[in-house]
Amino acid sequence: MTNAPRLASASLDHPADQRDVARWDYEADVIVVGFGAAGACAALEAARAGARVLLFEATSGSGGTSALSGGEIYVGGGGGTLMQRTAGFNDATEDLYRYLLLTGGPDADAARVRLYADLSLQHFEWLMAQGVEFRNSYIAERCIEPVTDDCLIWSGSEEAWPFAQQARPAPRGHCPKFAGMGGGRYLMDVLTQRVQQARVQVQFDARACALVRGGEREVTGLVVRVDGELRSARARRGVILCAGGFVMNRDMVRRHAPLLLRSRFPIGTVDDGSGIRLGQSVGGAAINMAEGFATIPWYPPGSLVKGIFINSQGQRFINEDCYHGRVSQYILRQSGDRVWLLQDQDTYAEPQLRELARIEIATAGETWEEVERDLQLPAGALVGTVEFYNRHAAGGGDPLFHKAAKWLKPLVRPPFVALDCRVDHCFYASFTLGGLDTLPTGEVLDAARQPIGGLFAAGRTACGLPRWGEGYSSGTSIADATFFGRQAGMRAARVSR
Amino acid sequence: MTNAPRLASASLDHPADQRDVARWDYEADVIVVGFGAAGACAALEAARAGARVLLFEATSGSGGTSALSGGEIYVGGGGGTLMQRTAGFNDATEDLYRYLLLTGGPDADAARVRLYADLSLQHFEWLMAQGVEFRNSYIAERCIEPVTDDCLIWSGSEEAWPFAQQARPAPRGHCPKFAGMGGGRYLMDVLTQRVQQARVQVQFDARACALVRGGEREVTGLVVRVDGELRSARARRGVILCAGGFVMNRDMVRRHAPLLLRSRFPIGTVDDGSGIRLGQSVGGAAINMAEGFATIPWYPPGSLVKGIFINSQGQRFINEDCYHGRVSQYILRQSGDRVWLLQDQDTYAEPQLRELARIEIATAGETWEEVERDLQLPAGALVGTVEFYNRHAAGGGDPLFHKAAKWLKPLVRPPFVALDCRVDHCFYASFTLGGLDTLPTGEVLDAARQPIGGLFAAGRTACGLPRWGEGYSSGTSIADATFFGRQAGMRAARVSR
Repeated sequence: MTNAPRLASASLDHPADQRDVARWDYEADVIVVGFGAAGACAALEAARAGARVLLFEATSGSGGTSALSGGEIYVGGGGGTLMQRTAGFNDATEDLYRYLLLTGGPDADAARVRLYADLSLQHFEWLMAQGVEFRNSYIAERCIEPVTDDCLIWSGSEEAWPFAQQARPAPRGHCPKFAGMGGGRYLMDVLTQRVQQARVQVQFDARACALVRGGEREVTGLVVRVDGELRSARARRGVILCAGGFVMNRDMVRRHAPLLLRSRFPIGTVDDGSGIRLGQSVGGAAINMAEGFATIPWYPPGSLVKGIFINSQGQRFINEDCYHGRVSQYILRQSGDRVWLLQDQDTYAEPQLRELARIEIATAGETWEEVERDLQLPAGALVGTVEFYNRHAAGGGDPLFHKAAKWLKPLVRPPFVALDCRVDHCFYASFTLGGLDTLPTGEVLDAARQPIGGLFAAGRTACGLPRWGEGYSSGTSIADATFFGRQAGMRAARVSR
Repeated sequence: MTNAPRLASASLDHPADQRDVARWDYEADVIVVGFGAAGACAALEAARAGARVLLFEATSGSGGTSALSGGEIYVGGGGGTLMQRTAGFNDATEDLYRYLLLTGGPDADAARVRLYADLSLQHFEWLMAQGVEFRNSYIAERCIEPVTDDCLIWSGSEEAWPFAQQARPAPRGHCPKFAGMGGGRYLMDVLTQRVQQARVQVQFDARACALVRGGEREVTGLVVRVDGELRSARARRGVILCAGGFVMNRDMVRRHAPLLLRSRFPIGTVDDGSGIRLGQSVGGAAINMAEGFATIPWYPPGSLVKGIFINSQGQRFINEDCYHGRVSQYILRQSGDRVWLLQDQDTYAEPQLRELARIEIATAGETWEEVERDLQLPAGALVGTVEFYNRHAAGGGDPLFHKAAKWLKPLVRPPFVALDCRVDHCFYASFTLGGLDTLPTGEVLDAARQPIGGLFAAGRTACGLPRWGEGYSSGTSIADATFFGRQAGMRAARVSR
């Protein structure tokens, strides 16, 4: 007898009632939904704690959106990782804590940041113990991620105002030993191998369709579609949702994070919001849903940081020495749809990722007046901004936006160049940061912050460490997914009911 | 036998199961939660359609947050209201439609706007038929709301860029015949009287605690606390949530609309998010939760519109001739926490609501250089902005922000004045615009936009006509609450099950 007829009325938005489950097609202690970094780590820890683990993945292979990333992990504190110490950085836990708290924005989660800062070094050890390799090397120059197999980079706004004034800067982006960009696939291959070796049953091509609720406030299973058929899966201890964010669901983006609609390059695999909706269907609260990350890789080379961004009105709007994603967040919210990066003869170099970024030279001229005319800006709009900037830069200061002295240089050597960085044309990669509210243990919370029995979330299905577009730093997503995936796996394995 | 023990485990975030309701303490066809404008109108229409209506109000009297408003209704189209026509405005339905669609922002609800634009005049007639009086008078000057009992005012950005370029402007804010500000109380008194005359049972001091779910996807009642006791109320046809927004719940504001945290003057009565949470507890989707309205009443007099706003960097950021709330929304998202309104001898007049607005003169000087120094802005930051503005204003243009010619005047006559409009100090009144996703009929939708049986919402519990801070116009909240409250009442009364 099949369950299908009685389960068909359940959906992402309406759980099935356990009383309607005629029999269980699958049984496990812990069910994990999604085989990205969060799901892999959740499964590994749950299995290590002795649970029988069943992992459902909607696609035919492991990786999820984590495999599209650089595989970079934001870690530090405790005096520093081997790479940090070798590079001369004694990174204190309190500086890591303060930085992550600042980057969390107005709704930063102090408990989550505290736990992560305290256990960050241990977590890095754990990743290495899984087999993820990192070279002991450091790249001092600005980059997005290494094109070599090097490790340590500056991957946030640590050295920039206002962060540097409140937390001692250190580079904390640790990239796996993988030559070229895209270390996320390598990271996921290593984790996948570990999952295969662990007591984890993996079912690919299995799409989560609904949660199963047993009694009040208690999740006891999952309805999945496998081979075109609805099947029921019992979770004796808990279900862990690691099914990504919602950036590929443009309706959801419009209703919750409309600023991201401007990005034409959402970065995701499934990321259709189904994980978040499953959580909400049993009372889980989704928070910070308007927050997202969007970026254009406008540097390296670092010399470009000495240029200035101007908006449609010819105004500067940010200290250009902060992280590319923070610059981009400010770009997104400017009035008007034009934005340029201005350079002079000394600072200009072709952006290394120019083709990917789709950055074109809008115009070049022998005077800033000429550039201003070419861009069809009203007389004085650009020239006034450049003159003001140059005058103060010559004195070593940026009184309006506080760009650090080492990046200040008057833009006075012709030819002058304006790079076109329009959001509607260029490569602004984006993903969402809002998701289910959880405890650091991964327990999904309702709007009163009461846990929902048997339900956990991690990765971008949850609202994690990175939760504020202005504060995003590379490596915090994978750090969050792996670390809090582990916490959820450990906690779910301990559920007794 | 009391229901209490079995109902106590239900909450705003978890519905009660109808099987746990031992008996119904109240029974009605339609239950309305909240006695503001939306609730009153929902109750009136449901009763008119023949339903037995029960209205629960958490406080001891009618009014809700609507009673704190100006009672202004945004109406027009169809050639214009009597007041519009008398004032010389032939307002086309399509212009009303286009304007409201624009002001809805990226997630504007075309179906809702269409229905409202088509029936706006009829709705105005209905309000008058209830006994709400409006004088046939027009105030051409800029104001927030009349201090007299006059009616028609400009209450949005109709004449300002970019709205005027896309919809023919007309004044559409209709204020009730009530001398002084605060016509919302008058409006609510009239509606309250009608509710008392109708077949509506009103229970004050009754706080909605949980929905009751009967079977799958079906709301069948409500748990309320009355006299310190939990009671069950059966809704044979439907429950209509009109319980306000969430601006008074600062935790919710932080998690969903952190920009509004900066406003120290949330405008609300209950508005604790309980209506939205009740809807979410049965799968209702909340949308646009980050959007809100915040404003400082910086004009009248209108001459102040000829001044310019500058941010912490001394930059202009908006055409100052748009609606005060749109200016304020842009103020809120500027970098830095300082903002000033600059005036010269010719344009300055004391803001009529200076004390309420808490606007102080930051400084005055004989030259703009002196003002710049007094404000501790770096040399040239303010002066450059003013010079650029003056140069173009002298030519009748504002190439950066498109302020209309009639408001352009070079600020060249000393003394010069800077008014301090800091968000952290001044009166920025705020409320939320996000809420439950509904059909124009008020039916609450889940994330897949499927209606949830027996559940309706209106007013700020729903995401209505006004749903974008940048586009808010005075009168759209009360228009939305009254009109879509009515739709919900009519629809709920017709439910058969």
